[in-house]
Amino acid sequence: MKYTFLLFAFIFQLTSSISQVNTEDSLFIRNVFDEALTEGKAYEDLRSLCKDIGARLSGSAEAEMAVEWSKLKMESYGFDKVYLQEVMVPHWERGTKEVGWYKGKDGKLNKVPILALGGSIGTDGILSGELVLFNSREELLNAKRKDVEGKIVFLNQPMDDKLITTFQAYGGCYPIRVFSAVDASKLGAKAVIIRSLSLSDHEHPHTGTMTYEEGVTKVPAAAISTKDADLLAAFIKTEKSNASFILEMDCRKLEDKLSYNVIGEMTGKTKPTEIISFGGHLDSWDVGEGAHDDGAGVIHSLESLRILTKLKYQPNRTLRVVFFMNEENGNMGGKTYAKEAKAKGENHVAAVESDRGGFSPRGFSCDGDQKHIDLILSFTEILKPYELHKFEKGYGGVDIGPLKDEYPGIPLFGFIPDSQRYFDFHHNANDVFENVNKRELELGAASMAAFIYLLDKNL
Amino acid sequence: MKYTFLLFAFIFQLTSSISQVNTEDSLFIRNVFDEALTEGKAYEDLRSLCKDIGARLSGSAEAEMAVEWSKLKMESYGFDKVYLQEVMVPHWERGTKEVGWYKGKDGKLNKVPILALGGSIGTDGILSGELVLFNSREELLNAKRKDVEGKIVFLNQPMDDKLITTFQAYGGCYPIRVFSAVDASKLGAKAVIIRSLSLSDHEHPHTGTMTYEEGVTKVPAAAISTKDADLLAAFIKTEKSNASFILEMDCRKLEDKLSYNVIGEMTGKTKPTEIISFGGHLDSWDVGEGAHDDGAGVIHSLESLRILTKLKYQPNRTLRVVFFMNEENGNMGGKTYAKEAKAKGENHVAAVESDRGGFSPRGFSCDGDQKHIDLILSFTEILKPYELHKFEKGYGGVDIGPLKDEYPGIPLFGFIPDSQRYFDFHHNANDVFENVNKRELELGAASMAAFIYLLDKNL
Repeated sequence: MKYTFLLFAFIFQLTSSISQVNTEDSLFIRNVFDEALTEGKAYEDLRSLCKDIGARLSGSAEAEMAVEWSKLKMESYGFDKVYLQEVMVPHWERGTKEVGWYKGKDGKLNKVPILALGGSIGTDGILSGELVLFNSREELLNAKRKDVEGKIVFLNQPMDDKLITTFQAYGGCYPIRVFSAVDASKLGAKAVIIRSLSLSDHEHPHTGTMTYEEGVTKVPAAAISTKDADLLAAFIKTEKSNASFILEMDCRKLEDKLSYNVIGEMTGKTKPTEIISFGGHLDSWDVGEGAHDDGAGVIHSLESLRILTKLKYQPNRTLRVVFFMNEENGNMGGKTYAKEAKAKGENHVAAVESDRGGFSPRGFSCDGDQKHIDLILSFTEILKPYELHKFEKGYGGVDIGPLKDEYPGIPLFGFIPDSQRYFDFHHNANDVFENVNKRELELGAASMAAFIYLLDKNL
Repeated sequence: MKYTFLLFAFIFQLTSSISQVNTEDSLFIRNVFDEALTEGKAYEDLRSLCKDIGARLSGSAEAEMAVEWSKLKMESYGFDKVYLQEVMVPHWERGTKEVGWYKGKDGKLNKVPILALGGSIGTDGILSGELVLFNSREELLNAKRKDVEGKIVFLNQPMDDKLITTFQAYGGCYPIRVFSAVDASKLGAKAVIIRSLSLSDHEHPHTGTMTYEEGVTKVPAAAISTKDADLLAAFIKTEKSNASFILEMDCRKLEDKLSYNVIGEMTGKTKPTEIISFGGHLDSWDVGEGAHDDGAGVIHSLESLRILTKLKYQPNRTLRVVFFMNEENGNMGGKTYAKEAKAKGENHVAAVESDRGGFSPRGFSCDGDQKHIDLILSFTEILKPYELHKFEKGYGGVDIGPLKDEYPGIPLFGFIPDSQRYFDFHHNANDVFENVNKRELELGAASMAAFIYLLDKNL
């Protein structure tokens, strides 16, 4: 890195800014980024959420504390209104026992870290059985009952690393985590062990939601790490019918519990009844600290409204930040929010979600009609200096999804950060504050704030 | 992350691929990415370079071993030619003593990790003096001799965190590292301590090159971490003239040494005399492992030629991968390469460099005329599915820069990864293999290979 290069850098910086600086919007957006990058609260707020609260699964004490934390935080930033919305949430607990081994013909025990999938039943003491390996969900669905009955299924389907956007690779394996307990049970299996949904080769298992089906026997389901999955698959190939698995888990489902969405508002000046909601989910899985999933998303959203407040923005519409509860295992926060909005006769005109981690911003997706896609395409030039390049048709978010049922035609937008590292951290012990980069987080918050500003001005 | 989302993901993946799949180029580029992501050698090669060799400053034993390592590696991939090019390089050594303290009126010693800037003289025993603080190079340049003479200058200019591309912020502080020993010495200072060039608030000092000037007394120069810089600045403000610094360093300059650029080639089929060079630099600073700077760059380049070889690409032009020696403190590899190319009458038609880390790919910059900028803009559509969006006028690279002197009008291209984390790791103990993400590195290699392929076909 030599000196000549720097001259280039300055010249190009200058050139790229000149075309924009004359407009009010460009200046405002530049102020948004300056505030986020120099006076930003995002990083310290995320640190506090991760360290003072930690993992916050719906129904847990931590989730309850996270609600208190969020309300206090919003109040401290002087939003026009801050309030809670009641949400009944499912309450599942991992329990304290969670242990697994595999062994072969020689009886030697190989201990392996397991993580119950969210919603799984426990094993009611030690459970053991012969292992049967499937390399894909398709293989399992096509298996014969006699090959599965009484056994423990090991489903070792890897995420497809050829897909450039990692969420697409996640999409391909998501049904394994959600449905394999049902798939395996239908063929008489005792339990199911899955390969973690990750593109990274490491030692931590990843949890996540799974379901049971009415009329199908519930069997326990757990994940092992990608690294252990490779080892176990090789072991089964060597040991054949001699390979068995032993596990104990005392996870359990408790009574549904009262929890809350946490909501803050900046009242619109010219069209106060028109509402733009934006948010992420406050709950997380119970391992790690929910730093990227979705601490980053709630902090992006909180920081957006803080910045707009700090810059004394006078919005046309009412801007409403929502920390949704229970995205991970029920989406009761999102469902309740949409239903009550409709019941109260609120006029929702758009919603934005951040739930893809706290990585370098790449753009925004639009789940809407051509008019709305064209709208965000019209933001391309003004946001280019901030390295936002992806403006495309795509998914909005799980939490804001139910608004579509109540308000057909409402455009939903999703913040798109870089996706490459997301599934290294997703739903596992690595999803901690230390794995979030300060600048990447701050740029995400500024991108959200700028996008909400442009939406409010141009909808 | 719910199921409906996945349907969207698949539909969009499908849609986005359809428009491209009918062309030979699109299919080839898809194969390039598949190879990098599923059969890639980049990650394990980088691990080996970092762990089996380590940091490799010009003239060191490690740099010599890195040359051997590189030649062997290129030979193992079956390139048409592999050879070394002699380069005389400067040889500077850190030595073993490197220790610093600051103290105030009460005499209490505060130990602080220091890192000599590359090229600095040693202190010849203990050196101590009253501290004088400057918050910018401009302040120092405008200082009066009486305020600096006989003192130790502490230059605490932070990188500008408002700049979106971090290299621009680096550009603003680069002169501090390079010139402050001269600037301070001209005013009679004994030594200079600088704030590390980083946007990250952490405890590791960052080294990097600096210079002396003929006729100006050489004074020792060292960096302290951004964290310590904040503490020390506050300390000086409190203690005023009572604040002093004590340091010892035995770094020294030795005789120039013979080293090598390492070169591999795939011979062109239709225009074998036309050469496209691409590479990074094999040398690194002597702390960390040179993983991002520039292990990633040489591995991107190596993997590019490996992939093109593996896919049996028949290039029009001769494709030449170059591992340049001595970018960090002299650029003798780049200078020698360009001079000898010209002397031998070679016909160089383009060059590409990767020296901005192993992060998620964003695009390519072009240091060339409008025709060449238009050329890379024509790659936009075909590379969009790989999340490459930035194609713009900009810098090529330090190593390939001298080609411009010998071949006026030659277009130089720079690979642009995401820049947000680069200066967390740059020139410090954190630049280790563990801080490189496998997919990000692999995508960088595939992006380089695809870009070189498109250049070769379309130049």
